[in-house]
Amino acid sequence: MALALEPATGEVLGSDRRPTPRGAEGLLDGMVGAVTDLSAQLDLGPDTRVGVGMAGLVDHRGVLRHGPNQPGVREFDVHGGLVTRLGDRVMVDNDGNCALWAEWVSGAAQGTQDAVLVTLGTGIGAGLVIGGRLVRGANGMAGEPGHTTVDPNGPPCPCGRRGCWERYASGAGVARMARDAAEAGHLQEVLAAVGDAAAIRGEDVVAGARAGDAQAQAVLDDFAWWTALGIANLIAVLDPEVVVLGGGLIDAADLWLDETRRRLPELTVAAGHRDLPPVVAATHGPEAAALGAALLASEA
Amino acid sequence: MALALEPATGEVLGSDRRPTPRGAEGLLDGMVGAVTDLSAQLDLGPDTRVGVGMAGLVDHRGVLRHGPNQPGVREFDVHGGLVTRLGDRVMVDNDGNCALWAEWVSGAAQGTQDAVLVTLGTGIGAGLVIGGRLVRGANGMAGEPGHTTVDPNGPPCPCGRRGCWERYASGAGVARMARDAAEAGHLQEVLAAVGDAAAIRGEDVVAGARAGDAQAQAVLDDFAWWTALGIANLIAVLDPEVVVLGGGLIDAADLWLDETRRRLPELTVAAGHRDLPPVVAATHGPEAAALGAALLASEA
Repeated sequence: MALALEPATGEVLGSDRRPTPRGAEGLLDGMVGAVTDLSAQLDLGPDTRVGVGMAGLVDHRGVLRHGPNQPGVREFDVHGGLVTRLGDRVMVDNDGNCALWAEWVSGAAQGTQDAVLVTLGTGIGAGLVIGGRLVRGANGMAGEPGHTTVDPNGPPCPCGRRGCWERYASGAGVARMARDAAEAGHLQEVLAAVGDAAAIRGEDVVAGARAGDAQAQAVLDDFAWWTALGIANLIAVLDPEVVVLGGGLIDAADLWLDETRRRLPELTVAAGHRDLPPVVAATHGPEAAALGAALLASEA
Repeated sequence: MALALEPATGEVLGSDRRPTPRGAEGLLDGMVGAVTDLSAQLDLGPDTRVGVGMAGLVDHRGVLRHGPNQPGVREFDVHGGLVTRLGDRVMVDNDGNCALWAEWVSGAAQGTQDAVLVTLGTGIGAGLVIGGRLVRGANGMAGEPGHTTVDPNGPPCPCGRRGCWERYASGAGVARMARDAAEAGHLQEVLAAVGDAAAIRGEDVVAGARAGDAQAQAVLDDFAWWTALGIANLIAVLDPEVVVLGGGLIDAADLWLDETRRRLPELTVAAGHRDLPPVVAATHGPEAAALGAALLASEA
């Protein structure tokens, strides 16, 4: 997803959506291609600033240090590679930071001082604003609650540890819980539709629940509970004014978000003695990260 | 613990230590008594500012909303009660915030932009500095990682939930793990010394480990592991430059802190792709919260 923005007005001039290539060089080629095509299409000058929001642990210098969901992509100097090919007009940040910035400037977190965004996609992304400023941390890697341990005896995570929040409150988490349910003899309708427990994806569970399958809905209820648990942990640490949820699963919010909200008080410390933050869907949808990257690049 | 500070120089003029009274009115009487006695002793004027750092969830207005370790003390307007009795010269904040502020101004977190302090006492307290500013949150209740869930099937917590970090990485956590060990037939030397598994305290385990009891040391090794796990969770979210540890258990740091540091990399996401923050003992010891409260009051 690439997007061109007129910073003075906030107007989106055009966008370009393409599948994420695999591997480090493929990622770089894809980004350069999107920028080049969009620039030609909109007749943008060679000094137009470029902002990139990407998944994974991106440090202050724009190096993707570790991408738990991009096998083999580590210590990849995205900023340096793009500067070589596009010139010194590039800003690279984590996509969670970018998405939150878009929501903070003109979306669901607008007007707040302390906001948390969590994207529930294949994995979990996040961004934090505290005191009206984006939190990047000492290495630029703040905002990775998906890899906080919520059960040391939980399922293994591609990051090398066990029981990360992302193993539950994400598309991959829904798929894992669904496979476990199917192997335990539940979720027979979804299993019949997919054919193989190992092949069940989050989307299959959502489709089942939407068609009225109570066992598929039960998996989403578990997902909703774990989502609430991780949000409660973030509230205990950060006490934000608002929690904004984005990512692919928010498109199915009608199937689980009310359950997350219902469970939140019992999972949050001193819930009866504080104002719990509203838990709301992101405004900008799938283009939030690209929009935020463009906003951050225009401010840099 | 009350402490008088000359704000211009940072010099501690005097201090007063007394046991914490039980109940809301007792707490208020104790604080007023300490301020009155110290003021008389040092001939301080009636306009001298008063800072109070107290355990529990203290909101922006200085109301102790909930004290999980002070049964029955809830929705207690500490600021209002003190203003009535001492005049409008009082600042009330959470003791973790205060202790971190002291460490940030002149201790182990000095010179950093992003710092986390965790006090390992009976429970867990904490304070956060991000971008050089103390983080208070929307309700003033930020910095309560002790009540993040690290195991939803873990032991019940006085806060009403299960598996809070504080159930493991605190004096109460050491005592609980020690009782479990004694009831499982371990820890016989400590049990013999104390007489009753239910009466084992954290201090008994520390004394046993210091005397060379390997089973007592094993309980502290578990404590060290859980301490590392919670620190790793804070690093994933906040990516701080330094993690400062205070509280009573830091007095026995020689028995467990190296183990916490040794375990931290395996528990932290992408530990090999980031600079892990140093995990260090607080500089100011048991007077950190009082010192920080005095500093914050003098700045208010």
